[in-house]
Amino acid sequence: MNAPNVFETMQLLGLQARQASRAMARSGTAARNQALRELAALLRANVQALQAPNQRDLARAREAGLAEPMVDRLKLTPKIIETCAEGCEQLAAMPDVIGDIVGLKQQPSGIRVGQMRVPIGVFGMIYESRPNVTIEAASLSIKSGNACILRGGSEAIESNKALAALVQQALESAGLPREAMQLVPTTDRAAVGQLIAMPDFVDVIIPRGGKGLIERISAEAKVPVIKHLDGNCHTYVDDPCDLDMAVKVVDNAKTQKYSPCNATESLLVARGVAARFLPRIGAVLAAKGVELRCDPESAEIFKKNEPLALDGQAQAAIKNVVNVVPAQEQDWYEEYLAPILSIKVVAGVEEAIEHINRYSSHHTDAILTTDHGHAQRFLREVDSASVMVNASTRFADGFEYGLGAEIGISTDKFHARGPVGIEGLTSLKWVVLGGGEVRG
Amino acid sequence: MNAPNVFETMQLLGLQARQASRAMARSGTAARNQALRELAALLRANVQALQAPNQRDLARAREAGLAEPMVDRLKLTPKIIETCAEGCEQLAAMPDVIGDIVGLKQQPSGIRVGQMRVPIGVFGMIYESRPNVTIEAASLSIKSGNACILRGGSEAIESNKALAALVQQALESAGLPREAMQLVPTTDRAAVGQLIAMPDFVDVIIPRGGKGLIERISAEAKVPVIKHLDGNCHTYVDDPCDLDMAVKVVDNAKTQKYSPCNATESLLVARGVAARFLPRIGAVLAAKGVELRCDPESAEIFKKNEPLALDGQAQAAIKNVVNVVPAQEQDWYEEYLAPILSIKVVAGVEEAIEHINRYSSHHTDAILTTDHGHAQRFLREVDSASVMVNASTRFADGFEYGLGAEIGISTDKFHARGPVGIEGLTSLKWVVLGGGEVRG
Repeated sequence: MNAPNVFETMQLLGLQARQASRAMARSGTAARNQALRELAALLRANVQALQAPNQRDLARAREAGLAEPMVDRLKLTPKIIETCAEGCEQLAAMPDVIGDIVGLKQQPSGIRVGQMRVPIGVFGMIYESRPNVTIEAASLSIKSGNACILRGGSEAIESNKALAALVQQALESAGLPREAMQLVPTTDRAAVGQLIAMPDFVDVIIPRGGKGLIERISAEAKVPVIKHLDGNCHTYVDDPCDLDMAVKVVDNAKTQKYSPCNATESLLVARGVAARFLPRIGAVLAAKGVELRCDPESAEIFKKNEPLALDGQAQAAIKNVVNVVPAQEQDWYEEYLAPILSIKVVAGVEEAIEHINRYSSHHTDAILTTDHGHAQRFLREVDSASVMVNASTRFADGFEYGLGAEIGISTDKFHARGPVGIEGLTSLKWVVLGGGEVRG
Repeated sequence: MNAPNVFETMQLLGLQARQASRAMARSGTAARNQALRELAALLRANVQALQAPNQRDLARAREAGLAEPMVDRLKLTPKIIETCAEGCEQLAAMPDVIGDIVGLKQQPSGIRVGQMRVPIGVFGMIYESRPNVTIEAASLSIKSGNACILRGGSEAIESNKALAALVQQALESAGLPREAMQLVPTTDRAAVGQLIAMPDFVDVIIPRGGKGLIERISAEAKVPVIKHLDGNCHTYVDDPCDLDMAVKVVDNAKTQKYSPCNATESLLVARGVAARFLPRIGAVLAAKGVELRCDPESAEIFKKNEPLALDGQAQAAIKNVVNVVPAQEQDWYEEYLAPILSIKVVAGVEEAIEHINRYSSHHTDAILTTDHGHAQRFLREVDSASVMVNASTRFADGFEYGLGAEIGISTDKFHARGPVGIEGLTSLKWVVLGGGEVRG
């Protein structure tokens, strides 16, 4: 039983993080940017030194029988380290939002009232495998003036410790407290339970990982959680629609990568264009081996195999659409993260919105249309973190949105929604500037 | 055992609220403003009709032995009803924020990305006594395009039912769903347990009441809670400071009303001005019978009773400062809501900030100073929902801040902080406007 030790370890980490967060909140823009540039330099100077601990993690992972693609994700290659260093430099070059005062307005009483952007304090992050997340999280924490407690995967513990030491060195050399970034030093699972239950020391928890992990953490946490559950993203092909564009965008949304949370998992097609559109997208997806889970109406269209203006290759490919299987109710909820797409024919934009609001995980949903009114209605009524018109759902990403970096993607409505960047790690407090006013 | 009935009642309320929230999200500005003006008219037309149910509540309260000040809070006087009606009209006249798109920016990929303000969906509100809160909550809900489920105090159930009927009539006459505002029809306590545990139907809970109630709800809720715990507000008199202004502001902050959460409960005074300031404010507070819970240094100053430039009345008053009692550690945490003030002498702005960040409830804290640097530091470093310079803490209020109305005051950092108006009942979702872009 080392539970009491874990308790004490985590309490100490929490106390130190809270204290460090005060110093970070006081710190100047220059010091925080210096720490980021210092960290970039240290990462580049330590490409070789990072290999030894990383190799130990890899060896342990292989011994434990981890599949090679999973082992791959643990690797700290020179290229990955350079990407981390560049990320730190990009953050350093971004404007500082801490201390911004927005909406300062004169009130009838004489006082001026506005809101100041301040760090949220301390965030805890729980993540798996890729050790570069340690640098991403630490650098966002530094830029936003927070302190953080990071709990990486046990399979990457040696790599994470080596990276964390560089972060602390960078903080110190910029005159900031080392404890503004702390790595949970133990792989004991009890540490996670402690981390999510210290409201005095930790203001918010950001879990990154499987749905099971996030649901468990959300249920047990005693502080707010920035949740990223699943990405059951929809693309709706409207009537009227530029179908050439729709083929290109749906193809990209589904097949550019299968594993990201912003890949499209469900295709809705307006009845008016279904017979023309489905065979065309079917040909493209069949050529890539995508399984189609179809409602009866779309299945019927694929079966009819109507004459198409397709080139020879696509004509051949459409013959390969043997992979049409009937969709079950569960398919409309599913995040496949695989070459599978559910397909449903709907009457029009209204039914599409209804279907999406019912089955979507509220992550990202898109309409492809040439109708302005339909676009406006979809934007307004679809209740998801990102709602798109004529663009691939794959764009739902902090970098693509211009946030500079992303600590996660929230499927919640509360506080931060969608890609969470620096602002998601801050809060707005009210500031009142008076000249001795009193209330009458 | 009517628990199953309560369960079914609440599930039905939730389902209807969720459906109504979709219609509200779709609704136009004009319809929502019309509902608000209609409600104002109905309130004025029903001043007399509201008296009968209100009298029944009052009679029941008196029978139950409720103290007369508590009975008073239940009263729906013509003046209170008129204030409610005016509140509805003021909200109707305010600009609509729903559908606003902010920060729409062109990205290198070609897409334009911004954030659209949308209703949060359904909020549940749990409150006590004053039936006018029913109108305040319902009108904010209508303006912000949400649906709400309201659970008022059992002592005001008849008044609340009568008011809720008017709200539903106003909604209907504006072509909006009646179910956009529903009152929990039972006084069974199990209903509260249900209301806070329906994440499918309710997006956020706003409790208003005692600290015990709010802590219990926060601990048990399965959805986010906009918490207003306590208001242990500080006023810090800095060195240098305009002491005439400080006497006026501290007097107002403490004594203008004792019961509001934004009243000052703790006075910090810089050592450099303590000997000059404390006797002056002591005289003012003594004249009003305020008990002073003092640290040893401030107690010593009061005892010395140094010569002061006071008028005769104040000279007499200061002799009445018999009410100096030694502060205990617990006093620094206390929200008295009474004619009691804790007082401590500090070295300067740094110690004041440290004390406040340690003991404050993060509600509202003020510095009174003529030093620009001290003011800037206090604004930046005090970790509270409202931070003020040279103003009475009593200004921390949605109306005074220009929010038009206030559904509560949040002492949390997450989502909404400080006075919560319409924007606190909304969320920002990302919108992406493309022209067929795909991700490379």
